[in-house]
Amino acid sequence: MSVELKRARINVSLGRQEADLVIKNGNIINVFTKEIIKGDIAVYNDLIVGIGNYSGRKEIDATGKYICPGLIDSHVHIESAMVTPAEFAKAILPHGTTTIIADPHEIANVCGINGIMFMLSNTMELPLNTYIMIPSCVPATSFENNGAHLNPESMESLKAVDRILGLGEVMDYNAILEGNENMLMKVELFDHTTIDGHSPYLSGKELNAYRTSGISTDHECSTVEEAIERLRLGMYVQIREGSAARNLETLVIGLKQKGIGFDRCVFCTDDKHLEDIRREGHISHNIKKAINCGLEPIEAICMATRNAAQCYKLKRLGAIAPGYSADLIILDDLDNFEIDKVFYRGKLVSDKKLLVDINNAIENKSVFNTVRITDLTKEDLTIKLENEEATVIRVTPRDLITKKETAKVSVINGMFVADEKYSKLAVIERHKALHNIGRGIVCGFDVRNGAIATTVAHDSHNLIVIGDNDDDMLLAIREIERVNGGYTVVSQGNVVDTLELPIAGLMSDQPAEYVEEKLKLMLEKAYALGVNKGIDPFITLSFLALPVIPEIRVTDLGLFNVTEFKFIKQ
Amino acid sequence: MSVELKRARINVSLGRQEADLVIKNGNIINVFTKEIIKGDIAVYNDLIVGIGNYSGRKEIDATGKYICPGLIDSHVHIESAMVTPAEFAKAILPHGTTTIIADPHEIANVCGINGIMFMLSNTMELPLNTYIMIPSCVPATSFENNGAHLNPESMESLKAVDRILGLGEVMDYNAILEGNENMLMKVELFDHTTIDGHSPYLSGKELNAYRTSGISTDHECSTVEEAIERLRLGMYVQIREGSAARNLETLVIGLKQKGIGFDRCVFCTDDKHLEDIRREGHISHNIKKAINCGLEPIEAICMATRNAAQCYKLKRLGAIAPGYSADLIILDDLDNFEIDKVFYRGKLVSDKKLLVDINNAIENKSVFNTVRITDLTKEDLTIKLENEEATVIRVTPRDLITKKETAKVSVINGMFVADEKYSKLAVIERHKALHNIGRGIVCGFDVRNGAIATTVAHDSHNLIVIGDNDDDMLLAIREIERVNGGYTVVSQGNVVDTLELPIAGLMSDQPAEYVEEKLKLMLEKAYALGVNKGIDPFITLSFLALPVIPEIRVTDLGLFNVTEFKFIKQ
Repeated sequence: MSVELKRARINVSLGRQEADLVIKNGNIINVFTKEIIKGDIAVYNDLIVGIGNYSGRKEIDATGKYICPGLIDSHVHIESAMVTPAEFAKAILPHGTTTIIADPHEIANVCGINGIMFMLSNTMELPLNTYIMIPSCVPATSFENNGAHLNPESMESLKAVDRILGLGEVMDYNAILEGNENMLMKVELFDHTTIDGHSPYLSGKELNAYRTSGISTDHECSTVEEAIERLRLGMYVQIREGSAARNLETLVIGLKQKGIGFDRCVFCTDDKHLEDIRREGHISHNIKKAINCGLEPIEAICMATRNAAQCYKLKRLGAIAPGYSADLIILDDLDNFEIDKVFYRGKLVSDKKLLVDINNAIENKSVFNTVRITDLTKEDLTIKLENEEATVIRVTPRDLITKKETAKVSVINGMFVADEKYSKLAVIERHKALHNIGRGIVCGFDVRNGAIATTVAHDSHNLIVIGDNDDDMLLAIREIERVNGGYTVVSQGNVVDTLELPIAGLMSDQPAEYVEEKLKLMLEKAYALGVNKGIDPFITLSFLALPVIPEIRVTDLGLFNVTEFKFIKQ
Repeated sequence: MSVELKRARINVSLGRQEADLVIKNGNIINVFTKEIIKGDIAVYNDLIVGIGNYSGRKEIDATGKYICPGLIDSHVHIESAMVTPAEFAKAILPHGTTTIIADPHEIANVCGINGIMFMLSNTMELPLNTYIMIPSCVPATSFENNGAHLNPESMESLKAVDRILGLGEVMDYNAILEGNENMLMKVELFDHTTIDGHSPYLSGKELNAYRTSGISTDHECSTVEEAIERLRLGMYVQIREGSAARNLETLVIGLKQKGIGFDRCVFCTDDKHLEDIRREGHISHNIKKAINCGLEPIEAICMATRNAAQCYKLKRLGAIAPGYSADLIILDDLDNFEIDKVFYRGKLVSDKKLLVDINNAIENKSVFNTVRITDLTKEDLTIKLENEEATVIRVTPRDLITKKETAKVSVINGMFVADEKYSKLAVIERHKALHNIGRGIVCGFDVRNGAIATTVAHDSHNLIVIGDNDDDMLLAIREIERVNGGYTVVSQGNVVDTLELPIAGLMSDQPAEYVEEKLKLMLEKAYALGVNKGIDPFITLSFLALPVIPEIRVTDLGLFNVTEFKFIKQ
């Protein structure tokens, strides 16, 4: 940066030169002293340069209003919203989120380094500070085939890239505890940065070992005991409120009751869908909910700003003070966190609605065309059973956990026959046309006269399909192949509807409004096929292949007992 | 670091392998949750790897005792103790200080980059984490000649050197406010690091401008209003308790009364002499005093540990948790902060007294032989006065401030004649034999029948001499030249005593005990010469040439009015 620019900032700060923008007479939230102090905020270019009494070329009267720093989502997977980063930015900016720390492990599982580069280049021009954590567990486990492996050698080149902040959530904690060379090399490579954690239920010595390796955050706490244990070890606890995973109430109320301070707690969404963002907010929702749980507004705001900036060593973010990025929110009301205006680097980006044009033109089309499967026949969907007793996967309402059960199912000629109660599930490897197919029987999904398929299948994102008949299942597979990935609902030989997700088979190239509307319609159609209303068919389906959430899953390599960590027969 | 080492740490953490050391059953101070929790601390090699229930090759029973992290001095000038870093380490380790952040501007003012390299190489092997801030204001001002200039170009090469943490205290705030190119280039060079501040009485827009440039700490707060103003702007306040400057009581009591939290306050000593360290402690004294001011022990400990580590982004310091450096203190008593044992990187270094041998062999002797002056005569010490009314410098007891006064002094043949009341002061450039001599008249020092001289003269460290007669003053100058720098007391044609400080004219190469004892003896001798018992003659003399502390000083270029920032006639 030039000396001239530094000099100009100092001159504006001194009042010798007019500021570009002054937000006048607001009640400024000070995240350092946790006070509210009336004053002007002088902005020059993209930076706050003064707090006090200033005049500017443009002045905005904020009398009676509150000003807080732009919000930081400390851990998010953009791909979960199923839109491009540009569309995601459009969705979250009006809710005050001006910085995100994204872990692109979804697209990395499909496209490897190229997927990470895609996320980097498609966030470069956005009015959103986007930082990337290099995914640490690609593939997530060795019990499945994904699209690419991220090894320490390939990561080395990324370390010094601008906006790469650290190493992403280390979900494979066993690799740490067993001293797996590959994993330890990755952790060592990023030792000078922040390394995110993901260690639900890890405790005692195992948690100590996990922490010793250098991992310093965790967003998977569902109990206050987990949170306290991690805080005591010096980890930052990322309090998550997403679409499926909602831990905020438990943690905020619990920590407050125990008298534990929140200075090392931050907010995140992890995975949040467009509809939920639109309806309730983004990190703004975390704040509102925390206030409703009895937290002081300033404390909640600190978690969404200063604490996150501190955790990730973001020097100029997360506060309203000279030298900080002019990412600001004007609030009409503090206790209800009602957002009036949002500024990003000194520019007004939202005034109760988005004001800026964010181009959804996509850089790097090499992440399209990622569905590669062999021709499949009914033979490939066959589940052979010796007798009527089979291991089934019971899906549970309002939870991602599955139960391993034994049930009497329909068997003809030694082959499982699906019906309304017991659906057939298949996971088809779709990155390199390996012709791997894993199969299972699911109870509690209840699809009738149809099939649902998707390439959003955490974390390897193979093609997962569920149905009560093979014809519809094959049709669903071919439809997914035709559109290069997405969600599809088919019934009785017809495609009912399809949401195309051509970017890596995970994201749409369409506007957010279209995607949200389409998903809503398809949800109705899925329920019309008899899907259990206690579950979200798309979310449930998308997690049935994830072999780290108990108790039982299917990967492209077969039926997997998560608790015992091994493949099993039907 | 090798994967094997990481793996070994994990294994010890898991309890699969014995720890090297376990401190058992102590009451562990948790600086994250601010709790005290009983447990074992497992150490492997130099790192803490587990908190809980562990066994080790060596076990120390800490039942009934308290364990806290090793202490961090966030801002210190080692040279002020007048000994080598090795001797300094010996002095402070038993008091629990295991990390220091040193600003070597004293030696840099004499020896430039070579002085900084001296400090780096002489701290490399010490059992003390020593970090260096690159001095930003060498020379301190343009109103004096020092030994070397540190410009942005010479600093560039130092930036990437291990243990260089950032840019040292920016005392020349005017250079910032005026947009001085040189200064702004330095600040820009270190923009990605921590930049220390020094801005007493700066306030309002000027403080905003100072902060905007990226400066983020300040140790010069003497009032609670200054401290609060800086905290609000996101600066860390370094609460100082040294030998001369003692701000702790005011700041701690004041901030506590105002209900301002201490999470962004840290402790420092800045300048502390050996005798005071021995007598009252080091950062341990800051802690004890803070507790006496009503602060909770844990809060005080946090300021000396976690907060400082956070401020300077020292990832593995300042806490007792897995992955952190095993720098630990076992306390017999918490409320009185009574230290029993001190560990550095897992090694016991003090057990109520220093246990380790620290070699005082000095690396890099090029910083000796730094006194270069021309031959001087009485002529050079002459102060011409037109009449009896002269501007005098009044020294004040217990303060570094001087007062500018007018007084009637003794004048013969148009020349000032010193006496018991009005001493003569001269500052002689001593780095490049420039033959510059600044002169002044001092009131309140009261030396009788003698002279005192030194090369410790902040910040340019020229040769400063005070006396009531020219012969003794010249003798003192020659004595200083003979020993290559130090302090000397002369009287009636004889050298009474001399403390040799041959390292840059600032530090002794002798053991700390010798230096402390010698200084004590010389102090008695100075007082025996009539020096005002309300002042410390050496400290007072050493600050009489510093043209940034009001109101009036003498540099090698003449008599200087600090308030008006210009040279004046006698």
